[in-house]
Amino acid sequence: MYNFPSKLLENAVNELSKLPGIGRKTALRLVLHLLKQDSAIADALGESIIKLRKEINYCKLCHNISDSEICLICSNPQRDQGIVCVVEDVRDVMAIENTGLYKGVYHVLGGIISPMEGVGPGDLNFDSLIGKAAKGEIKEIIMALSATMEGDTTNFYLYKRLKEFQITISTIARGISIGDELEYADEITLGRSIMNRTPYENMLKG
Amino acid sequence: MYNFPSKLLENAVNELSKLPGIGRKTALRLVLHLLKQDSAIADALGESIIKLRKEINYCKLCHNISDSEICLICSNPQRDQGIVCVVEDVRDVMAIENTGLYKGVYHVLGGIISPMEGVGPGDLNFDSLIGKAAKGEIKEIIMALSATMEGDTTNFYLYKRLKEFQITISTIARGISIGDELEYADEITLGRSIMNRTPYENMLKG
Repeated sequence: MYNFPSKLLENAVNELSKLPGIGRKTALRLVLHLLKQDSAIADALGESIIKLRKEINYCKLCHNISDSEICLICSNPQRDQGIVCVVEDVRDVMAIENTGLYKGVYHVLGGIISPMEGVGPGDLNFDSLIGKAAKGEIKEIIMALSATMEGDTTNFYLYKRLKEFQITISTIARGISIGDELEYADEITLGRSIMNRTPYENMLKG
Repeated sequence: MYNFPSKLLENAVNELSKLPGIGRKTALRLVLHLLKQDSAIADALGESIIKLRKEINYCKLCHNISDSEICLICSNPQRDQGIVCVVEDVRDVMAIENTGLYKGVYHVLGGIISPMEGVGPGDLNFDSLIGKAAKGEIKEIIMALSATMEGDTTNFYLYKRLKEFQITISTIARGISIGDELEYADEITLGRSIMNRTPYENMLKG
């Protein structure tokens, strides 16, 4: 269908269209945009991608992306190392950090258990978390995974491996979003929000 | 709002989000996808972009993107050099080539006149086309630009510069798309398709 007049062009389009959500038409549009810009912009983009993949580093403690061996959160003496929030990836860390309300540390799994996508427990960073738990370094674990079947499966797997230790295990609260109207909430969320109702004094603190 | 835990990550996200239609959340999703892939994939992407921008070449005759000094269409003796189809960019050349019905050559303007985006006649490849016309090398020019205000402006500008020469000037036909139902066509298109009706014998050839 596509007769590219240039191998260079075809090659760049092929590579860009390997990215998720970018088809060949979009890739061609992006490439033509780059050709109209100053060449420094294309160079900076190409080099930033190569450099990122080559020099990327993960924190030895929490597995989050980090420029140093131990990330800024794990090495911060103000953060409570005894409280660990388990998340899927760096985006969740950034989202929780943006709330400004959490003072513990994180543990980044690098994904969630998903048999459909061929991701099993062996592909994720579970063992180092269990190791920390076994050493008695953790007093509380907060599971902050997506409210999906994969997230629930991962929560349950983790709960089974952690329950032998003296650790408080919780999940982040599921309920009605702030600003939402009750009549539009789905029944499962509404049901859970009634079962796990919060003492009103806690609301006053938030 | 975004607290990136790594400068490398932030840099790659910044560069990717300079592309049109890619916001910072999408850029982060693409970058995290690249980090999960084999490093050869990120390298190939980065290098294809740098190489394209550095080594890109445009045909000396028609200004289309080409790996050789004269593109494969312009150097093909089977193509009629006397018929020139004027298009905006390489995507239009590819679209027309895909029909398999056109046997002339192209002239790629590299854009259309758009005062809103600061693109004037001086930014586009008009002069070489006028030069060819003045030398008497062209017998017919087909203007195949978008049916937008910018396309119409460009058509009119070109028409004014070309009318002094003995050249047949036409535009591609505007009308009802094949497969479309009349009742859903807009009035301007339907009106034009009646004004510029086609002898039925021509349809039988198509």
